[in-house]
Amino acid sequence: MRRERVRELLTRVAEGSLPVDGAIDSLSADPVESLGFATIDHHRALRQGFPEVIYGAGKTVDQVLAIARRIAERGDGVLITRVEPDAVLPLSDAFSDMEYNPIGRTALLRASTPAEKSKDTVLIVTAGTSDLPVAEEAAVTADAMACRLERLNDVGVAGIHRLLARREVLDSAGVIIVVAGMDGALASVVGGLARVPVIAVPTSVGYGASFNGLAPLLTMLNSCAAGVTVVNIDNGFGAAVAAARILHR
Amino acid sequence: MRRERVRELLTRVAEGSLPVDGAIDSLSADPVESLGFATIDHHRALRQGFPEVIYGAGKTVDQVLAIARRIAERGDGVLITRVEPDAVLPLSDAFSDMEYNPIGRTALLRASTPAEKSKDTVLIVTAGTSDLPVAEEAAVTADAMACRLERLNDVGVAGIHRLLARREVLDSAGVIIVVAGMDGALASVVGGLARVPVIAVPTSVGYGASFNGLAPLLTMLNSCAAGVTVVNIDNGFGAAVAAARILHR
Amino acid sequence: MRRERVRELLTRVAEGSLPVDGAIDSLSADPVESLGFATIDHHRALRQGFPEVIYGAGKTVDQVLAIARRIAERGDGVLITRVEPDAVLPLSDAFSDMEYNPIGRTALLRASTPAEKSKDTVLIVTAGTSDLPVAEEAAVTADAMACRLERLNDVGVAGIHRLLARREVLDSAGVIIVVAGMDGALASVVGGLARVPVIAVPTSVGYGASFNGLAPLLTMLNSCAAGVTVVNIDNGFGAAVAAARILHR
Amino acid sequence: MRRERVRELLTRVAEGSLPVDGAIDSLSADPVESLGFATIDHHRALRQGFPEVIYGAGKTVDQVLAIARRIAERGDGVLITRVEPDAVLPLSDAFSDMEYNPIGRTALLRASTPAEKSKDTVLIVTAGTSDLPVAEEAAVTADAMACRLERLNDVGVAGIHRLLARREVLDSAGVIIVVAGMDGALASVVGGLARVPVIAVPTSVGYGASFNGLAPLLTMLNSCAAGVTVVNIDNGFGAAVAAARILHR
Amino acid sequence: MRRERVRELLTRVAEGSLPVDGAIDSLSADPVESLGFATIDHHRALRQGFPEVIYGAGKTVDQVLAIARRIAERGDGVLITRVEPDAVLPLSDAFSDMEYNPIGRTALLRASTPAEKSKDTVLIVTAGTSDLPVAEEAAVTADAMACRLERLNDVGVAGIHRLLARREVLDSAGVIIVVAGMDGALASVVGGLARVPVIAVPTSVGYGASFNGLAPLLTMLNSCAAGVTVVNIDNGFGAAVAAARILHR
Amino acid sequence: MRRERVRELLTRVAEGSLPVDGAIDSLSADPVESLGFATIDHHRALRQGFPEVIYGAGKTVDQVLAIARRIAERGDGVLITRVEPDAVLPLSDAFSDMEYNPIGRTALLRASTPAEKSKDTVLIVTAGTSDLPVAEEAAVTADAMACRLERLNDVGVAGIHRLLARREVLDSAGVIIVVAGMDGALASVVGGLARVPVIAVPTSVGYGASFNGLAPLLTMLNSCAAGVTVVNIDNGFGAAVAAARILHR
Amino acid sequence: MRRERVRELLTRVAEGSLPVDGAIDSLSADPVESLGFATIDHHRALRQGFPEVIYGAGKTVDQVLAIARRIAERGDGVLITRVEPDAVLPLSDAFSDMEYNPIGRTALLRASTPAEKSKDTVLIVTAGTSDLPVAEEAAVTADAMACRLERLNDVGVAGIHRLLARREVLDSAGVIIVVAGMDGALASVVGGLARVPVIAVPTSVGYGASFNGLAPLLTMLNSCAAGVTVVNIDNGFGAAVAAARILHR
Amino acid sequence: MRRERVRELLTRVAEGSLPVDGAIDSLSADPVESLGFATIDHHRALRQGFPEVIYGAGKTVDQVLAIARRIAERGDGVLITRVEPDAVLPLSDAFSDMEYNPIGRTALLRASTPAEKSKDTVLIVTAGTSDLPVAEEAAVTADAMACRLERLNDVGVAGIHRLLARREVLDSAGVIIVVAGMDGALASVVGGLARVPVIAVPTSVGYGASFNGLAPLLTMLNSCAAGVTVVNIDNGFGAAVAAARILHR
Repeated sequence: MRRERVRELLTRVAEGSLPVDGAIDSLSADPVESLGFATIDHHRALRQGFPEVIYGAGKTVDQVLAIARRIAERGDGVLITRVEPDAVLPLSDAFSDMEYNPIGRTALLRASTPAEKSKDTVLIVTAGTSDLPVAEEAAVTADAMACRLERLNDVGVAGIHRLLARREVLDSAGVIIVVAGMDGALASVVGGLARVPVIAVPTSVGYGASFNGLAPLLTMLNSCAAGVTVVNIDNGFGAAVAAARILHR
Repeated sequence: MRRERVRELLTRVAEGSLPVDGAIDSLSADPVESLGFATIDHHRALRQGFPEVIYGAGKTVDQVLAIARRIAERGDGVLITRVEPDAVLPLSDAFSDMEYNPIGRTALLRASTPAEKSKDTVLIVTAGTSDLPVAEEAAVTADAMACRLERLNDVGVAGIHRLLARREVLDSAGVIIVVAGMDGALASVVGGLARVPVIAVPTSVGYGASFNGLAPLLTMLNSCAAGVTVVNIDNGFGAAVAAARILHR
Repeated sequence: MRRERVRELLTRVAEGSLPVDGAIDSLSADPVESLGFATIDHHRALRQGFPEVIYGAGKTVDQVLAIARRIAERGDGVLITRVEPDAVLPLSDAFSDMEYNPIGRTALLRASTPAEKSKDTVLIVTAGTSDLPVAEEAAVTADAMACRLERLNDVGVAGIHRLLARREVLDSAGVIIVVAGMDGALASVVGGLARVPVIAVPTSVGYGASFNGLAPLLTMLNSCAAGVTVVNIDNGFGAAVAAARILHR
Repeated sequence: MRRERVRELLTRVAEGSLPVDGAIDSLSADPVESLGFATIDHHRALRQGFPEVIYGAGKTVDQVLAIARRIAERGDGVLITRVEPDAVLPLSDAFSDMEYNPIGRTALLRASTPAEKSKDTVLIVTAGTSDLPVAEEAAVTADAMACRLERLNDVGVAGIHRLLARREVLDSAGVIIVVAGMDGALASVVGGLARVPVIAVPTSVGYGASFNGLAPLLTMLNSCAAGVTVVNIDNGFGAAVAAARILHR
Repeated sequence: MRRERVRELLTRVAEGSLPVDGAIDSLSADPVESLGFATIDHHRALRQGFPEVIYGAGKTVDQVLAIARRIAERGDGVLITRVEPDAVLPLSDAFSDMEYNPIGRTALLRASTPAEKSKDTVLIVTAGTSDLPVAEEAAVTADAMACRLERLNDVGVAGIHRLLARREVLDSAGVIIVVAGMDGALASVVGGLARVPVIAVPTSVGYGASFNGLAPLLTMLNSCAAGVTVVNIDNGFGAAVAAARILHR
Repeated sequence: MRRERVRELLTRVAEGSLPVDGAIDSLSADPVESLGFATIDHHRALRQGFPEVIYGAGKTVDQVLAIARRIAERGDGVLITRVEPDAVLPLSDAFSDMEYNPIGRTALLRASTPAEKSKDTVLIVTAGTSDLPVAEEAAVTADAMACRLERLNDVGVAGIHRLLARREVLDSAGVIIVVAGMDGALASVVGGLARVPVIAVPTSVGYGASFNGLAPLLTMLNSCAAGVTVVNIDNGFGAAVAAARILHR
Repeated sequence: MRRERVRELLTRVAEGSLPVDGAIDSLSADPVESLGFATIDHHRALRQGFPEVIYGAGKTVDQVLAIARRIAERGDGVLITRVEPDAVLPLSDAFSDMEYNPIGRTALLRASTPAEKSKDTVLIVTAGTSDLPVAEEAAVTADAMACRLERLNDVGVAGIHRLLARREVLDSAGVIIVVAGMDGALASVVGGLARVPVIAVPTSVGYGASFNGLAPLLTMLNSCAAGVTVVNIDNGFGAAVAAARILHR
Repeated sequence: MRRERVRELLTRVAEGSLPVDGAIDSLSADPVESLGFATIDHHRALRQGFPEVIYGAGKTVDQVLAIARRIAERGDGVLITRVEPDAVLPLSDAFSDMEYNPIGRTALLRASTPAEKSKDTVLIVTAGTSDLPVAEEAAVTADAMACRLERLNDVGVAGIHRLLARREVLDSAGVIIVVAGMDGALASVVGGLARVPVIAVPTSVGYGASFNGLAPLLTMLNSCAAGVTVVNIDNGFGAAVAAARILHR
């Protein structure tokens, strides 16, 4: 149950358009709902400002559908990440408004009452075109969490002037997410140029001694630019949630 | 050159207490100063809001002293981290106001004009008493970067009620730094309870399969609580800078 | 040959329903039987209280069938783990009573004489729905080894109240198996709350810096809750055998 | 506060030798005590059956002393593991009854009321003489947690008959702790011979590709004997606590 | 060119059945033959006692065929390991006498003049049935290198009596190859029982913390039984060549 | 925009065959072109002497086509590495002169004005036939960058005379690229024999403890022959660019 | 008890110089002797042809002395490896004939009856002078195990002609031990030149990406020369025992 | 024997200042000299253009002195790297002209006839002051190998303008060595700006997830700037030799 939903209920009670008993029923729904194979935390939205997100990998289609239905029934939006290919069609069938992003592998059902957008923007910067799937996951998540978005793609350090030419974009952002694979060096350069929080996302783009993203992960953790923070490899979702925590503080 | 210093200069010019030429001299000092073995970035404070910080490890005492003198001469504060034991006395001799923190291994010379303190606080939480050196480095850094501080020590998840009993402290913080070694599990629990940004610092506290902090590092990168970000092992400094970026946004 | 089987033979001799020679034949069967490609340890059940279990991975269907037949012929139950997909049908054809669990990838043929169930229960706790395959392997194994079962699913530490709300379940268990991927932090929290033995099973659920389960494995080995023991990644089988060793002590 | 202490208080009240108010004072002491740098969990003993144990590494002598004093004041026993060399004398001075074990690096102050010893024994088996420090840590801990002890040293698999000659010792134990470095193979052999729970402790004994205990850790996690559980490298303490959880179930 | 072939040529010259010029032609063939994509070392047989062996992985079918033809043309036998599935049929078509082993993935064309068999045997011992593919590769290689063979399968240490019951087989071998995955502990036990050289082959059998054979590799390198040597993971071929070097010394 | 192209334009202006305005148009094209998902660095050729190369992995066919078209439009050549199988046909359709190398997985469209070939040669040496795909990637890249080529295949150290027999080839090269998997030892031997720069490319050829090329990577980084430099595993492209940097210095 | 000792006893009985009862006493001494902290395997010499060797690391001086005395009392020789510095003097005091090797860190007390020397030699080859400590450990061990010795030092592959110039030494050896750090490439070259068994010992000589010997270990395990076997990093002792197993077969 | 020395001898013969027999004696000195513990490769200078360099780590002072004397006797220069502290004084005593560099830990004895300096320069760039020891090793080595030098210190990417401000220095170099620890990102930026060969040296500067230089090593191997080559961690020596190979081509 999201804060917007609580506010809406209380407003309707204040306006007389919702009887007190109806509001009580809605508000007193059990915050933790057990489906046997899953225990849904309906109060996460109230507690943390964003609803439960379903991590699609390793779940059967039926499990994903069941969890999504319970969350959706409360009017909260639903975000599913790492959607397995065989879940796309069943999800579209079940939720006609579901927005599926094939590059980011996300499925988004917006909440009935949209939350207020953040005043500042999340700027998502990628080092290369191959980093786009992770950037898309971040973008959809940030959007779902009511953050304004800006994008700057393919500005890796092999051609540093591509980034320097757009320095004003760095200066105007509220928080910056840097998505980079291979050497992951872009995070340090951006971290040295920007004043605002910088969240680095290593990607598994690369081969050989990239070791599936270990190389940029270590680069970013050892960033010589102070105050760059890091999330898991390919974790566009986590970076966007961290950005939302910052913008909605 | 810090923003406060620039403001002070301009104010004095406006007030007539500083001739225009004097202000020009002060402002036009070369932003990059070369000492041969070092290239000081005097404009970092203007660009990023905090002055150059000297990483003490691997530098000779003479190098540390020389760099510190050049920064101090401009009236900017100086922060030295990872102060090598043989540098403590020479630093105290050179800078009588230097505040040395033996647990955090930091040496701090405050700027001539203190910056305005942040409105919100950084809450530094430790899992165990052995994590204190890293927490101290974070605390001194946050203080140097004008952040208000709060502390919560030794509340690791082996006795989860110790944390739950202090939940109101989590709710009132502006940003939370979680410092934990061994299993590093505290970051996930705090990340699940708090709304605000959570920065996790793995420490090298532990032995065996902790692999000098690799274990809590991986735990924190894989946090099941969404939006927790991570810095390098034992990097209390970096966590505090990230917190300052957030609070001074 | 299981202890129950020996007891049954001796009881029948005592009752006069089995001639001495028949009992001798049954009891003197070679404890080690060689199939050329395999050497079956028929006395493991007598020695350790549970029969040989067939690890299905890397064996041809014919090998699995041949070993299973030899064990089954003695009246001992047969448990096959990591059943390869192409072995499911042949096994069903060969053993009509075989119970196949598609999530846990196990095939179970119960012993002709069921063993006495344990007085206490094994509680299997999962951090997330994606951990279910490992939990199922543990559940089928514990069942095969005559342990009573209880389940608590999807109570990971990102929403710690889901676990705290069910604390009485932790208190009533005889031994607890904690199944968790990603950060694996649940094991430490349960280990800090429970008095009874806690066996942690890291799973390969996750991605990136989870490194196929290395992250939760290290977390669990470094648990700040004292006395948590750990088995191999995804080793639901091993955790259940360890639990059975404890309950049938 | 240990269960024995609570029982003693209530018995004394029942006997009239303790006024009700005195008992209330003793029982109502705050379960969580904050020393600033540490938060002591006095109810761990009640909750889990053993008091807080102080991990000595990375703590200053003053911190260790302060924590130990607070626990000791309540009449609970105190166990300090990984005692740093410079803490030995101050501890002896502060607690005249403190038993220091130089091989296991433990310091033990027994509780005023000894707990009832376990009916069954913990058997501690080592592969080689160099594994003794870890075995000693386990032995002192098991003793502190009221477990009966038995020892079998230097019976590694390079001379398997040394173990087989003592097989009756394996059969009579309630739980077995196997301590081994290098190849760690002893855990699998013991695991295959014993019916009872087997807890394996890899040690950092060895060199080269032992990688400070990684080799025996992996061996033990991959034990082909089913149901062997593992604790951290050199973690004799944890193994003993796990054994105590089993014996005092 | 194998030593047997040289001996045969010289014998025929001595007997008068081969003209001197014919022998010169045969003997003076270039020891190194270039195919552009490959440089065949025809004198390896003379130098080391066994002909070039073709490692099939990563080569196209045409490359394998071309190299095999050149070696075969000289009357030397040909051994191909790691035969890719799509190369089986073309090889059978090209060489009607080719013996293909589907479990060991080897293809063997015997030399026109068989070498004299070794006096002593290579004993190949496996820990489990799943280790057979590696054992088969070793067996075919040892056979191709004129070593007598003996086998002992599925005698891993979880049931140590399976091995002890066959101890006379260990005593009669000339050299022992131990093939084991998972914990790899069998190598240490055999190494402690046998007098003769013991070559350990770790296999990728297992999962999780086996890390594709890293676990048994480390176990074997750290064997507490002195004088056990180790080859690469799954390298049945290399173990057999090492055994042949020993037996044909 | 390549240097040859600039020279051609200026020459044509000097000759009067190109009006000044046309030259200005060509030269003033934006050096950085944004396609949204990609930011093309058209001045890399001017700055570094070779045009942007498209890394095909992880890009959609449409992305690869779009980027290739923009580069090709300027008359610069286009090189695509790691061409995904489903991109081959669309590329052939789009660019009829595209040269596709199935072993090296490269697609090359030559520049309209060929650059002058290097005076010295790049010698590409492989340890085995299975290393050819990486050697081909290097060869196509070196060719695209106007380097003369020489090849020496399958001369690994197991038969060191194969290399020693061709030592004159090492002596005549301008720079040597050594491509080797498994033990990677060839780089050290070549490094000890040659005077000229030696660039080592580890390949993922091998299995088991090769860990996908980690073994030869470490070998090459630790080369006892001084002055051998190393590129990423399987990075034939990078090695060739490094060679071109040397030859075109 | 070594075979030579048994032969001597029986010969003396046959000659009448030893009464039957005396021989019985000597022969019936318990093969396994327990010192509490150690369990000595006195029959290892009979079973495997060489007596127990004491691994000095991690043992107290008293433990080493006690074990050495018990072995020496039986007339068997004693070899101590990895002698800790503080044990040297006490050992010299206790055993006046003890031969201490400061480079190899070994202490050797020869058996009262020397065993017959091997017919063939062990050739110990080092890549560099820094590998000598490991080579010395191997040499002392081989000598203790009655193997003839030959040495070839500092012939690493950076100057391959140093090895090729001494090729006849390789040809005359019975078994070759190759000791090399850094790239470890020497093992492959020797393995390709020699017919006899080659045992490779990686050393921790090197720095950086040598990772304390991991680099040469991997090189040697991936040797492209077939049939090279490997022992643990710096394990000169193990290599020599393996050589002794081969020469005394 | 260096090329300059051969030229000098022949010139003197041509001038008549050296009798033919004297020249023959000098030239026919054995190219390989054995000291027992070392085998000196006197012809390396002729073959590769630089004399044998002594790696000081792990050698006794006597060994270093003996090898240095033999090389010096021939008039070739001597370079010793990683000079152990206890070798400094003996070296100074033995060679009065020895130049010891305490930061780079090198000792250099210049050749009697200096070689001709390279036309182009080696530019050595460091990311931070703590990288100086590695840069010094490179500088001394490059100097010993007759390369002109230029330096640019402390221009890491956290303040990218420090590098951009000096871009003309990059443009004028013949080859660039980039020395960087922590994130190692400087190599990619320099690689993207420069046309000439770029050799990257990762350093062990940093802590935690730097893993002693693994992080910058991986960064550099995965550089998104094409054609950057890499040497071992802290291997300033190797980088300089590679640069010398390029400049003296």
